[in-house]
Amino acid sequence: MPIVTPRTIPGVLELLPRDQIALQSMFDTIREGFESFGFLPISTPAMEQTAVLLTKSGSETERQVYLAQSTGARAQGYEPDAALRFDLTVPLARYVAEHEAELIFPFRRYQMQPVWRGETPQRGRFREFIQCDIDVVDRDELSIRYDAEMPAVIASIFSRLAIGDFTIRLNNRRLLRGLLIDLGVDDSGLQGLALRELDKLERIGAEDVAAALSKRGIAADTADRLLKVAGQGPLKGAAATEMLAALPDGNELLVKGKEELASVFSLVGVQGVNPDQVALDLSIARGLDYYTGTVYETTLDDHPEVGSICSGGRYEDLASLYTKSRLPGVGISIGLTRLFWQLRELGMTGTTANPVAALVTLIDEEGFETALRLATELRTAGVNTEVSMKAGKLSRQLKYADRAQIPIVVIAGADERQRGTVQVRNLVTRVQQEVAASEVTATVSSLL
Amino acid sequence: MPIVTPRTIPGVLELLPRDQIALQSMFDTIREGFESFGFLPISTPAMEQTAVLLTKSGSETERQVYLAQSTGARAQGYEPDAALRFDLTVPLARYVAEHEAELIFPFRRYQMQPVWRGETPQRGRFREFIQCDIDVVDRDELSIRYDAEMPAVIASIFSRLAIGDFTIRLNNRRLLRGLLIDLGVDDSGLQGLALRELDKLERIGAEDVAAALSKRGIAADTADRLLKVAGQGPLKGAAATEMLAALPDGNELLVKGKEELASVFSLVGVQGVNPDQVALDLSIARGLDYYTGTVYETTLDDHPEVGSICSGGRYEDLASLYTKSRLPGVGISIGLTRLFWQLRELGMTGTTANPVAALVTLIDEEGFETALRLATELRTAGVNTEVSMKAGKLSRQLKYADRAQIPIVVIAGADERQRGTVQVRNLVTRVQQEVAASEVTATVSSLL
Repeated sequence: MPIVTPRTIPGVLELLPRDQIALQSMFDTIREGFESFGFLPISTPAMEQTAVLLTKSGSETERQVYLAQSTGARAQGYEPDAALRFDLTVPLARYVAEHEAELIFPFRRYQMQPVWRGETPQRGRFREFIQCDIDVVDRDELSIRYDAEMPAVIASIFSRLAIGDFTIRLNNRRLLRGLLIDLGVDDSGLQGLALRELDKLERIGAEDVAAALSKRGIAADTADRLLKVAGQGPLKGAAATEMLAALPDGNELLVKGKEELASVFSLVGVQGVNPDQVALDLSIARGLDYYTGTVYETTLDDHPEVGSICSGGRYEDLASLYTKSRLPGVGISIGLTRLFWQLRELGMTGTTANPVAALVTLIDEEGFETALRLATELRTAGVNTEVSMKAGKLSRQLKYADRAQIPIVVIAGADERQRGTVQVRNLVTRVQQEVAASEVTATVSSLL
Repeated sequence: MPIVTPRTIPGVLELLPRDQIALQSMFDTIREGFESFGFLPISTPAMEQTAVLLTKSGSETERQVYLAQSTGARAQGYEPDAALRFDLTVPLARYVAEHEAELIFPFRRYQMQPVWRGETPQRGRFREFIQCDIDVVDRDELSIRYDAEMPAVIASIFSRLAIGDFTIRLNNRRLLRGLLIDLGVDDSGLQGLALRELDKLERIGAEDVAAALSKRGIAADTADRLLKVAGQGPLKGAAATEMLAALPDGNELLVKGKEELASVFSLVGVQGVNPDQVALDLSIARGLDYYTGTVYETTLDDHPEVGSICSGGRYEDLASLYTKSRLPGVGISIGLTRLFWQLRELGMTGTTANPVAALVTLIDEEGFETALRLATELRTAGVNTEVSMKAGKLSRQLKYADRAQIPIVVIAGADERQRGTVQVRNLVTRVQQEVAASEVTATVSSLL
């Protein structure tokens, strides 16, 4: 007698096979993109020591960390000493610090794994979601050229994903801090707070940001001048170049930031990225003080409401919590689960082919061995093939293939077997052809 | 100042990129094998409701389940209501019961995800390990033909993995129970206990099994007769057929079990599996009472000490805890993490190629744009390519490529640029050739 209601925990995305295939296809495409730029895979355990994940910052994220403890340890009254990762950056920092002596630097890694956060469940917020990250980390110093490589990777991946036109928005936090200094905001803590407010510009509008800045203690005319410069939206091509040239040379940070951005723009072009896919957006700050230089966000041109689908930036020191080595880096992250969910909401995920390419039908019991042999031949030729194990009406098996979106059906009924032939039916074009049994693999392969 | 020692939790396998590439390559190969037989992917959340995972059986496994709870919920004094899956079978049962109305039956799914158990850490025992499972589940009834498909999948995958000769050992629990009845053991509980002891035969030997059976209350001569039949080790080809034919027809279970085994053997052959890769082994019982008919284990011929690398069996009802529907199925599981670890211990994992196929070097700063363009061309042609971002001595860059196992190095120094050529160096054969810049992609592709 059933005693437990079968359901997932709240706040997770569980998919039927058809959607899982579409998600997995996006996953594979992202991985291919990462690998094409020479990034190497790592994978870290889901659990880290609590000391690694909980740094007593008292942040929202820390309240959402999942502690993990075996039922046996709990029964004995121990405190949990492990927890589930909430991002891939903290595990990367721990990994690089732990294996520093064995890694080859610059260390170029990709990592595509789920992370967990105890969010309050709501539409589009998940407690488990897959992050797809790349980072380049070096010792002591990392050339700005790596900052320019990130947009090339982003452009390559989102072109491959074919989910419409996109814009990679670039900015530089050094430049923003320089701007604030130029406007008289010298306190670096206040600069950080101001950038956090500025980052909300697109979401909440200039008026609200100005109000928030004023609350932080920034004078109204300073806020106005900042918003006038930073609030021009994404600028492409010549407009971006002009904007950069027009910025003041007020201080060292501003000059450095401008130079860095100019380098990134020029090198992105050399890597063959379409200039229409890259924009300067001086309002992008990324909330985190963790980032120090270049910052990235990526938006879909036709669906700005989706928000950033790939973000990241440059940081000065990855692993200061674990090692004395200075490890600067730059990285980006794609939140795959949320992206997939949003694309599905927009009806943009339905086109992935079933990995099962052929169904070998079974009309009469006597044909079973023939069916098995045909399937084996097809598989050996690289065609993913399912066999009907139960003899039955062809119409029912065609309906099954149709429903399961298997494009090719192979039929070897008693008549065909006597003639030494096979029917190959293409469910997409509805064309059926009778071919010699020896030709079945070539015929099916030519249709795929 | 570093304050936390960077280390993983105990009992997990964390790999350097080179090993991760090898593991990932095995993962991909297994996935290709599953897909070639028409299995569809699913993925379930790491966490399940505690009610799904903890069924108050009081088993060893239940003491090892990891409870998961957010720090926020814990601070508020709640009990954990989620836990991490400890296998992929329980989540499959919950998944099928939850989505039954939306699934197409027979439901053929593969699932390749980590599971967690709070084991006492020791060599070769892991607290996190990847399981690679397939199952076919149908409603009410499932043909024995699916039992014969499993060895075909196993043979296909381990042939692709190329880790040496292997033997798929087949048995049938119905037959074993029939044998016990024939020997006078009518109590089905006692039969289950006896099979659990018999299963240890290869590990602990006939004497110890006989002693354990006697402890369970089975008469010494009954145990002897059971061990005489079941203890003949793996039998292949004609020996297996003779053994099956020689078994008594003592009762219905015995007859049914013999028939099922004979069907499986004959259909495995039709699917082109090499008869040397399949054996009858009447000592295999799989500890679990969960299995009812066919059972499988797979061993490496040259490394029997590794134990079973792929096991599974037929079960009567997958999800009785969650649904009234009767859902018989058959499945197998590969414990990838442990298998990888064991192969590495045996020195059998070192041959996987680096996914990065080419390094474009940088000798002088003026060559940077050329290097970026060459890399973009190579990537566009499908060659995974890394670029040196820092100009420097060629010897140092060659050493880096060698250490990172990147097989091809592309060099466009000042001389080559003036001549409109590129040097393509094969680090495997140590052959270097100078080709026209326009030929670089074709040349590199031909070398891979």
